Amino acid sequence: MNKRLGDQTVRIESKPRIISTASVVGPKEGKGNFKDYFDVILKNDHKENESFEKAETNILSTAISESIKRANLTEEKIGYIFAGDLLNQLSASSFAVRGMNVPFIGLYGACSTMTESLSIASMIMDGEFANYVIAATSSHFAASERQFRFPLEFGTQRALTSQWTVTGAGAMVLGKTGNFPYVTYVTTGKIKDYGVTDSNDMGSAMAPAAAATIYQHFKDTGRSPSYYDLIATGDLGKYGKEITEKLVKKYGYDISSNYMDCGQEIFDKSQDDTNAGGSGCGCSAVVYCGYIYKNMMNKKFKKVLLISTGALLSTTSSLQGESIPGIAHAVSIEYGD
Amino acid sequence: MNKRLGDQTVRIESKPRIISTASVVGPKEGKGNFKDYFDVILKNDHKENESFEKAETNILSTAISESIKRANLTEEKIGYIFAGDLLNQLSASSFAVRGMNVPFIGLYGACSTMTESLSIASMIMDGEFANYVIAATSSHFAASERQFRFPLEFGTQRALTSQWTVTGAGAMVLGKTGNFPYVTYVTTGKIKDYGVTDSNDMGSAMAPAAAATIYQHFKDTGRSPSYYDLIATGDLGKYGKEITEKLVKKYGYDISSNYMDCGQEIFDKSQDDTNAGGSGCGCSAVVYCGYIYKNMMNKKFKKVLLISTGALLSTTSSLQGESIPGIAHAVSIEYGD
Repeated sequence: MNKRLGDQTVRIESKPRIISTASVVGPKEGKGNFKDYFDVILKNDHKENESFEKAETNILSTAISESIKRANLTEEKIGYIFAGDLLNQLSASSFAVRGMNVPFIGLYGACSTMTESLSIASMIMDGEFANYVIAATSSHFAASERQFRFPLEFGTQRALTSQWTVTGAGAMVLGKTGNFPYVTYVTTGKIKDYGVTDSNDMGSAMAPAAAATIYQHFKDTGRSPSYYDLIATGDLGKYGKEITEKLVKKYGYDISSNYMDCGQEIFDKSQDDTNAGGSGCGCSAVVYCGYIYKNMMNKKFKKVLLISTGALLSTTSSLQGESIPGIAHAVSIEYGD
Repeated sequence: MNKRLGDQTVRIESKPRIISTASVVGPKEGKGNFKDYFDVILKNDHKENESFEKAETNILSTAISESIKRANLTEEKIGYIFAGDLLNQLSASSFAVRGMNVPFIGLYGACSTMTESLSIASMIMDGEFANYVIAATSSHFAASERQFRFPLEFGTQRALTSQWTVTGAGAMVLGKTGNFPYVTYVTTGKIKDYGVTDSNDMGSAMAPAAAATIYQHFKDTGRSPSYYDLIATGDLGKYGKEITEKLVKKYGYDISSNYMDCGQEIFDKSQDDTNAGGSGCGCSAVVYCGYIYKNMMNKKFKKVLLISTGALLSTTSSLQGESIPGIAHAVSIEYGD
């Protein structure tokens, strides 16, 4: 049977299991809507490190180590770590994995990295190249602000369309067997760029990519929105979510009844300055590894389509007048009938 | 039969073929030792673009398009593009692929990206997730200098251990069948950090990772150095190559008779300021896609071990006093008996 369905989707026949997850978040995320679902909530953004970048490294390595522990495994059993983050040269991931004795593949898909790494991890498992692999990613508010925008001390006012980069890391261990949620389909995104140039409105820039991938997933698999208990995009925020829902409707599918955006939901609306919602690779990572995974384990959600969304801009590309290309990768995760 | 051999190596049973390659280089590379093997040699580093970054984007998209054309294919036939580069947020790759209607996976392994993308591409082919995939990468001297070091106008003096980032891009199309060189083994690297902090001596920082991966490849496969006609590391340069050769000897393998480093060889020694040799993701990419591939096609080399090498530092990590983690991924490429 051909594993490839249509233009962008592959069937993951062996159904690799997500045998454990770990989520580590900062204090702000730890006071948000999903506070009861995170495994580790930090007391401060520094996590006793001398810089935000080192803190992010530490948060990611904690999530990876914790996911291994929760799977009752040891490092030597892990075939590959697939990880990425937002810092230049993927330094959070490289430094987090540096002390680990595991083959490492670095991935960059901006905030789409959680499903990018989970997609590759699932295909590598299905290809029988390893018994266990890890998919992980992280982001850090303060490290992102100073790299992409301004140092916090600058005290810039935030646009209403801007989003708050999640401080957090999520890691999943995939294994071959066991009674756990499993991956059934992977729909890999194409880059979409509709000319949005406002880097304070990344939800709008990413929405066309999200909508295209969601549509393609339904088209390739023959499924309809009602097949899923939950369709969750990564970090489109309030405005990007609205656009995505409309665009998907134009494609002929109504997702309104079971659609949430991790970015829009992660913070409580009373939390200062979060405006359009959360963002960053860590956003869909911790919401999946925390809230969604735990509600799959207790069978509240049996069928989930997770679509992390990334804005592939750089500060240089924006300064050179380029628009913001978006990408979104979808992974279908199911548990039971 | 288990595809996994030992700790880091997998057998690629289906032997995906490298059915075409394309190499695009700048004028300096076009005057170097491999000038007769490159497909496109640019007249200037700008390639008629308004910035070095846009030039790199254009060089990479040219290499990808050219590789598709040389394979007698069209974009719609390509299942995935796996690509990465050195620019922040992988912007050369994202913008190069933006106009292409192909599912995209961004990878970052610093200068190890050519074998990183080729490794993943080979496993995805072997897993039967696509009929054709592309592995590609690029780098650009002037874009790298100003991002990682100083603007060229600053006119800084270059250390003797420093290397000259290659302006160039290489792309390979992998297919299932045909009389072409094929991938047989992939050895994925672990991160090695021996504490080198001098970012003007990256060859020394990467050497331990290169040596560890080469050793692991021989150990996992049971092969010895003499099995290969050519063992080629990515961009260790003069000093990194010397260290690697010695370290591999300490591991019990003598590679001296058939070992070259793409970085050490790409420039003619008379070329100004290239000092320890070439570097950048583009280095092993264009040397493989040009010189090595063409000499595989004419059967001068029948068995090649390609080991691209990456230094996983960022300017931030160096400023924060971190040492330079290295990584190296090996791919065994063979043709005929």
